[in-house]
Amino acid sequence: MDHPYTRIKGGVCASKEFLTSAVSCGIKNPESDRLDLSLIYSKRDCLSVGMFTQNKVKAAPVRVSQNHLRANPIRAIISNSGNANACTGPNGLKDARNMASETAKLLKIKQREVAVCSTGVIGLPLPMARVASKYELLIAGLGPKNGNDVAKAIITSDTHEKEFAISFDLDGTRIRIGGCAKGAGMINPNMATMLCFITTDANLSSSCLNRAVKDAVENTFNRITIDGDTSTNDSVIVMANGAAENKRITRGTKSCRIFAHALEFVMSKLAKAIVRDGERVTKFVTLEVKGARTAMDAKKVAQAVANSSLVKSSWNGEDPNWGRIIHAVGYAGASIREELIDIYYESKSACEGGIQGPTNPEVLRSIVSKADFKITIDLNLGSAKHTIYASDLSPEYVEFNRSEYAYWKQAKKDGLV
Amino acid sequence: MDHPYTRIKGGVCASKEFLTSAVSCGIKNPESDRLDLSLIYSKRDCLSVGMFTQNKVKAAPVRVSQNHLRANPIRAIISNSGNANACTGPNGLKDARNMASETAKLLKIKQREVAVCSTGVIGLPLPMARVASKYELLIAGLGPKNGNDVAKAIITSDTHEKEFAISFDLDGTRIRIGGCAKGAGMINPNMATMLCFITTDANLSSSCLNRAVKDAVENTFNRITIDGDTSTNDSVIVMANGAAENKRITRGTKSCRIFAHALEFVMSKLAKAIVRDGERVTKFVTLEVKGARTAMDAKKVAQAVANSSLVKSSWNGEDPNWGRIIHAVGYAGASIREELIDIYYESKSACEGGIQGPTNPEVLRSIVSKADFKITIDLNLGSAKHTIYASDLSPEYVEFNRSEYAYWKQAKKDGLV
Repeated sequence: MDHPYTRIKGGVCASKEFLTSAVSCGIKNPESDRLDLSLIYSKRDCLSVGMFTQNKVKAAPVRVSQNHLRANPIRAIISNSGNANACTGPNGLKDARNMASETAKLLKIKQREVAVCSTGVIGLPLPMARVASKYELLIAGLGPKNGNDVAKAIITSDTHEKEFAISFDLDGTRIRIGGCAKGAGMINPNMATMLCFITTDANLSSSCLNRAVKDAVENTFNRITIDGDTSTNDSVIVMANGAAENKRITRGTKSCRIFAHALEFVMSKLAKAIVRDGERVTKFVTLEVKGARTAMDAKKVAQAVANSSLVKSSWNGEDPNWGRIIHAVGYAGASIREELIDIYYESKSACEGGIQGPTNPEVLRSIVSKADFKITIDLNLGSAKHTIYASDLSPEYVEFNRSEYAYWKQAKKDGLV
Repeated sequence: MDHPYTRIKGGVCASKEFLTSAVSCGIKNPESDRLDLSLIYSKRDCLSVGMFTQNKVKAAPVRVSQNHLRANPIRAIISNSGNANACTGPNGLKDARNMASETAKLLKIKQREVAVCSTGVIGLPLPMARVASKYELLIAGLGPKNGNDVAKAIITSDTHEKEFAISFDLDGTRIRIGGCAKGAGMINPNMATMLCFITTDANLSSSCLNRAVKDAVENTFNRITIDGDTSTNDSVIVMANGAAENKRITRGTKSCRIFAHALEFVMSKLAKAIVRDGERVTKFVTLEVKGARTAMDAKKVAQAVANSSLVKSSWNGEDPNWGRIIHAVGYAGASIREELIDIYYESKSACEGGIQGPTNPEVLRSIVSKADFKITIDLNLGSAKHTIYASDLSPEYVEFNRSEYAYWKQAKKDGLV
């Protein structure tokens, strides 16, 4: 058995005593009735951890949520899609705070117990009149639902919702971890244009939870790339409400390690789902760099290769072009020796000691023609390694991202610009 | 008057006592008769300076030319297109040395007086039988031609040859500087998949020439980007043969500065021509970052913005999407304060203090709709600046770069793999 987890239904609402709700405000398009405002709420007090974009340009909701999570645990997350509320200045901050304060008022909790997340177009004000008119409906809709409402309400250019939940035994008690995520574009290590919300009913110490979330994000969301663009809004928020009533898990114990592993398992499923559903993506490539002198060298090489437009174009073209891979290795800024580099497609050697390996290119081509394959780069200099999950770059990605100008027109119609 | 130069004909052969020749070997395709092997030769001894790729994976000809140029001046450059002779191991080095030694033998000069350059597909052996059979024809063809033969023979996916030459007075003597270049893909600061050969008949000291070449490359070829991929073969080689018989120019003099300025002018013309003729490029964008705290910060921001797939896609879509620009500024790793950032399209303010500026998006859109426009990012933190010349990213670029697999097939047919 690969893992001791049972996959369960319910997504972000799978954990006990969490409620969700979602409504449609027409944020991006007033004529649309797609869900775009959602809420996750814990009936009990929570522990919570948030990790946010490393972009120095941060959206207003990121600033607000960082403040709230720094001060104390939160127990509700309100989020919208269709507008990132980024680069919107003091008015944007006011809007994000309004989302938190109005939600808190209706839930009868403190404003600082509410996190706010937004995703969508950058630089345009949120149409707050449309958002504010739905707060009551949103709160009234809260229930122990299947979580799918939130998963649907947070997506933007994703083609489908992403959710995953498991249960497992810990010290004789059944624990649940569930979550949902959105991705699609602006996806790069050190997070992505992504939102991810995770709930668990595990009862654990804040230091066990903090460490587990940090490690899990490092090994999952910080290892995916679609287009190399780190967004302004990336947020991962984890809430733990203890409703499973297991014996409290403390840091450094075996139980804490088991919990951490399970959390990483859930995040890994969601992170990989983001890559597979990247904008106009046709390939899922596991790129492993090993034999590096240092962990930083391994990471630099993996990122350079995974973000090279030429490498990614060749994946799209199903071309086993190891020449482009080694050229990206060369400019990664890592310690390398060209004549020691080996490159494998699955287990087949494409490049050996810096020159062409023994495998017939037709065999390599059949590997790259699959939707999902692994490339290993062995620098043969040391023992450090790093793995990244990457996508190809398609003509359709560029076509898709040529223009967001229609949003400006809508904003003008709304009198917002 | 912008500059005191007269544009003249002759490209890389415009300078006195330089000869050129080019022949067709069918390196990429035996059936093709396009020029793919060329030679530049100075009838006199030369000074010479070479600058090469900073990629740690270096093609065999780069290694050979670096050695030759380190030891002493060269006076001939043999170059081929259609195959980069990169990642070809000891046999590739043997092939590159053979190109130098056979050329030297026929020209009756020393092997180490010949530089070798290659450009084309990476990882496949050069079809040396086809190359070697043309050495005599190549040397026999040497003449004081118009230089256009070399300009034509070095291009790969370029749609046209790139050459430029000027003459100007220095201390009462007419001096000539001429050159040719090739680019198209794998173009990034710290050079590009580019070759550039420059000749001058100026009589000058080696320290004046060295400094002039280094500065000119830094301000021209190191400031262009098409796809962010630094190649394995980039080479800029400058030869000065003194045939103008001007009074010897020494370093630190006004004459040396005038020469340096003229050299940079020629390189700038060639570098910009490379961007304009990038693979499936539709836009030429001058990206100026100013107000940075340090020169390195200005450079980091310019490179992050110029290489963002999302920014480049929006240029292709003629979308004045300053939101994507500021998001790339945020992840550049430079000191910034979001609320101080201004972004201009030409002289029009798109973003002021980190939020939307006063200009009507329709006005900005009309600027981005031109083939050639300027974007200025003012960080308002200091006085350092950096300019990059960049292109858009088109669906056609990705389409074009999906596969080089046909070259493998040809190599197999040739019995090389």
